[in-house]
Amino acid sequence: MTGVKHMKWWGWGDEGIAFDHRDKPEFAPFVERAIGLDVSTATVPVPAFDELDLPASRADEAFHAQLTDIVGGEHVHTDAMARVVHTFGKSIRDLLRVRSGTLSRTPDVVVYPADEQQVQRIVELAVSADAVVIPFGGGTNISGSLEPAVDEERVVISLDLGRLNRVLEIDEVSGLARVQAGIQGPDLERELSRRGWTLGHFPDSFTHSTLGGWIATRSSGMQSDKYGDIADIVRGLRMVRPNGVVVVRPVPSASTGPSIREMILGSEGRLGVITEATVHVHRVPPVRVVLGYLFPTWDAGLAAMREIAESDASPSVTRVSDARETAFSFATRTRSKGIQSVGTSVLMKVLQRRGWDLDEICLSFIGYEGEASHVRYEKKLVRRIVRRHGGILVGKGPGALYDRKKFDTPYIRDFLLDRGAAGDVSETAAPWSRLRQLYDTTMAAAGKAYEDIGVQGWIMCHLSHSYHSGACLYFTFAFVHDDQPVKQYDQVKSAIQQAFVDSGGTLSHHHAVGVEHSAWLAQDVSPEGVELVRALFDGADPNRNFNPDKIIPPA
Amino acid sequence: MTGVKHMKWWGWGDEGIAFDHRDKPEFAPFVERAIGLDVSTATVPVPAFDELDLPASRADEAFHAQLTDIVGGEHVHTDAMARVVHTFGKSIRDLLRVRSGTLSRTPDVVVYPADEQQVQRIVELAVSADAVVIPFGGGTNISGSLEPAVDEERVVISLDLGRLNRVLEIDEVSGLARVQAGIQGPDLERELSRRGWTLGHFPDSFTHSTLGGWIATRSSGMQSDKYGDIADIVRGLRMVRPNGVVVVRPVPSASTGPSIREMILGSEGRLGVITEATVHVHRVPPVRVVLGYLFPTWDAGLAAMREIAESDASPSVTRVSDARETAFSFATRTRSKGIQSVGTSVLMKVLQRRGWDLDEICLSFIGYEGEASHVRYEKKLVRRIVRRHGGILVGKGPGALYDRKKFDTPYIRDFLLDRGAAGDVSETAAPWSRLRQLYDTTMAAAGKAYEDIGVQGWIMCHLSHSYHSGACLYFTFAFVHDDQPVKQYDQVKSAIQQAFVDSGGTLSHHHAVGVEHSAWLAQDVSPEGVELVRALFDGADPNRNFNPDKIIPPA
Repeated sequence: MTGVKHMKWWGWGDEGIAFDHRDKPEFAPFVERAIGLDVSTATVPVPAFDELDLPASRADEAFHAQLTDIVGGEHVHTDAMARVVHTFGKSIRDLLRVRSGTLSRTPDVVVYPADEQQVQRIVELAVSADAVVIPFGGGTNISGSLEPAVDEERVVISLDLGRLNRVLEIDEVSGLARVQAGIQGPDLERELSRRGWTLGHFPDSFTHSTLGGWIATRSSGMQSDKYGDIADIVRGLRMVRPNGVVVVRPVPSASTGPSIREMILGSEGRLGVITEATVHVHRVPPVRVVLGYLFPTWDAGLAAMREIAESDASPSVTRVSDARETAFSFATRTRSKGIQSVGTSVLMKVLQRRGWDLDEICLSFIGYEGEASHVRYEKKLVRRIVRRHGGILVGKGPGALYDRKKFDTPYIRDFLLDRGAAGDVSETAAPWSRLRQLYDTTMAAAGKAYEDIGVQGWIMCHLSHSYHSGACLYFTFAFVHDDQPVKQYDQVKSAIQQAFVDSGGTLSHHHAVGVEHSAWLAQDVSPEGVELVRALFDGADPNRNFNPDKIIPPA
Repeated sequence: MTGVKHMKWWGWGDEGIAFDHRDKPEFAPFVERAIGLDVSTATVPVPAFDELDLPASRADEAFHAQLTDIVGGEHVHTDAMARVVHTFGKSIRDLLRVRSGTLSRTPDVVVYPADEQQVQRIVELAVSADAVVIPFGGGTNISGSLEPAVDEERVVISLDLGRLNRVLEIDEVSGLARVQAGIQGPDLERELSRRGWTLGHFPDSFTHSTLGGWIATRSSGMQSDKYGDIADIVRGLRMVRPNGVVVVRPVPSASTGPSIREMILGSEGRLGVITEATVHVHRVPPVRVVLGYLFPTWDAGLAAMREIAESDASPSVTRVSDARETAFSFATRTRSKGIQSVGTSVLMKVLQRRGWDLDEICLSFIGYEGEASHVRYEKKLVRRIVRRHGGILVGKGPGALYDRKKFDTPYIRDFLLDRGAAGDVSETAAPWSRLRQLYDTTMAAAGKAYEDIGVQGWIMCHLSHSYHSGACLYFTFAFVHDDQPVKQYDQVKSAIQQAFVDSGGTLSHHHAVGVEHSAWLAQDVSPEGVELVRALFDGADPNRNFNPDKIIPPA
């Protein structure tokens, strides 16, 4: 056996774990109000696995034998389950398609190399046989970066990095760790924390995504304000190409022409297979705390985040939800603890007396790390800014709950999907001066799309990352779909994406391009910008063996 | 007239400004000890300008007329002075060659476009006529990024961006300024500071270099610890290509595949002509101060800088000189003020009583910016670390002097060159754990090279930038040359560069590749890494019209 675990073939996360609304009394009424769904409705059954309709594998025996020669027979898989779990990521489009029971194209064979040498031999075999290689990490991608093209006639190899999962070395003087690309988030943090270190990279997908996947998609995490996006964290890289390994040495900064490091970052397998990275690691700080705050309005919350970014403070998390997402957060509180303290009627009455409109309240989380004295200092700097914008501190309770629940959202999506509602996320980044207009445009565009398809849709937003000159806005949307869910979803998703690029935002802050966002690439980075990337891909992969058609749409 | 000023054709900086040692009593004896040069020796005369031997311009009348049609006759120059000042940058190799009186190849014509539209038309003309375009900013480059290949048979256009020198817009909410590429450092800071802003980018070349040049070479400045290297500062970009303009929008972070922004950064004109950038700007902080510190040894200084980088403090400058550079700094003090306070015999005697070896003393500068309370807080954090490593604070005097004199070093190089001594700089970056070994290897390699060429050479070093995982080490070297100065220089420079890459350092932290460093590119970024860059260049510029042969050496 490979020892590599995969998520449910039909949904997010581990078998046996699911969202349960029964201890959250406000959840059902909220969903009813938001998208008109009665959560006690009968669930839509997921098809039985053996009823799935898969195309035959195109990998013939000779090819299978060559792969077996490289990695050993137990690491070459052509069974239906291996092929299905390696076909898609976990976007709503992916889940809808896999639950439809028909997969038009799957990888023909899944291989699990043990080391870089085996990756090199697989890559050489693929190029000499004119096969397609699609590197696979945790399979959490939601931009279509993993799926084979439906009309791909060559053999498609899903190259699963799951066995390259070790922390190889920690340079304790430099704060650098050499780590294999296939390691998943929790395994990596456990290995590091055992020795007193942390990477500090916690994307929503953390529990199942891999270092290599983060790099290949330019991931960002919940504490990236402090630790940096993965593009900042990664210094050294190894990427296997047909004639050898690209080796980027882990220097802190370099003036060596166009950045090869920044070509590999975000390359989604189109340039080769990332096998290893040397990453920034930090001593686990003495204090790590996330505090909850409330702002009277979305504008006040945004303005406060901007001012914090401009100030001498440098918190690890800056997050504020719009009023709609705040209402959603309140609706997911359990009967007895945690976030309840925020939504208690006592506090609300106090705020009402202060003149707050309770429908406009925005929940914010700000995180602090470092020596205790440093955390105290930073909290003081932030408190002044929060006050200036009319906000109040509500304490550690909500922050601790946020910390505990932060990876749970995808399970809610499956819960809704089981009941006939489609939901997903879209995120962007833009300069501070554009954020409010971008937000308004996006909300209006989603509203118009819902109207056009005749549904009562929901959309909510939070600011998830702050930078000197701007921030990431993260939208979550859902609606009860009809019998053409992908078509309906496309209409809503397209309206949101178009609003992003029309408003000066990027097509994605940290979810990659894949095939889901490639239609907006030229609008985002300009047609001439696309030509530069095309020049790189065409020159580096003239026969299109490496995950073709991703990022730049086929001509 | 174009209104664009250029430096001396035979040296650094403005006419009439030169280094003067007469008020620095310790300078002459220091130079005598260091490289055996008597500075009162007769100076080597620079050749008269009209004795220079230039090749004829290959731009014929028809081509000249086409350029005139685009930019107007007064902005097309083929006179000897224009061609000479656009042939080289200001490396010691450049100065030695221009002072030799013979220029094997110069640009054939210099054009000064007024705007991006004119740049576009020049680029289109160049491609259609199969001419070569070399973008030119301030001409301060020391890596050979500007010179035409000696065997280039096509017409070579030096495209001087000097008229694109305006701050177009400041987005005060986002802290972003849209600025034309040809603006020089002082003009840019003056325009910004007039409105309360600063870019915070102060490379050694600041007084004469341009924004476009900084971007094209991946520049770094003295306060980059706080403001970031130019690669961090630049968000948006416009670069003219034969079929249009690459437009990178100023989003704070994006997940849009391989970074186009990071392809243009460091591209040295090989992908097109950078015309504009949108850059981070910051409110001029209430307090800006640089403090001087002394450490008993180089190891103590390096260890303190590393610990500061790891701490909760984030100073704007972290700099420490080795004992040799410290001695050089002491030797440049004037009779009456400034750095004298550091080197006073009273202080030295106190340190000696404490057990310091005065030959091992290392001078350090640490900068602080922000609100007064923040500066106090950071100074306190740093003071603890400095003390832990046996260092002492020596106050504001040396820092203020450093601030005043920081752009003067190139004038000293000219002073020495006038007297038959060749000097230049080489810098690198490496992980903290490699720095000491890199330093030792480099000092030994330079020593060996001096021995091989039979001269008494000098080399000294400072740490100039700190990062989480490493730092930049900046070496300055000089020796009295014989009648083959370039050959001798090459031997010393090559030894230093080879020591860098052999010790895990990069070929340059912030001076670019050009032709000076291209021999080490494959050793630094791996042969397969070079192939990625080559794929980009070949695809984007198939006929090699854009500053060919830079970065990647000709096959």
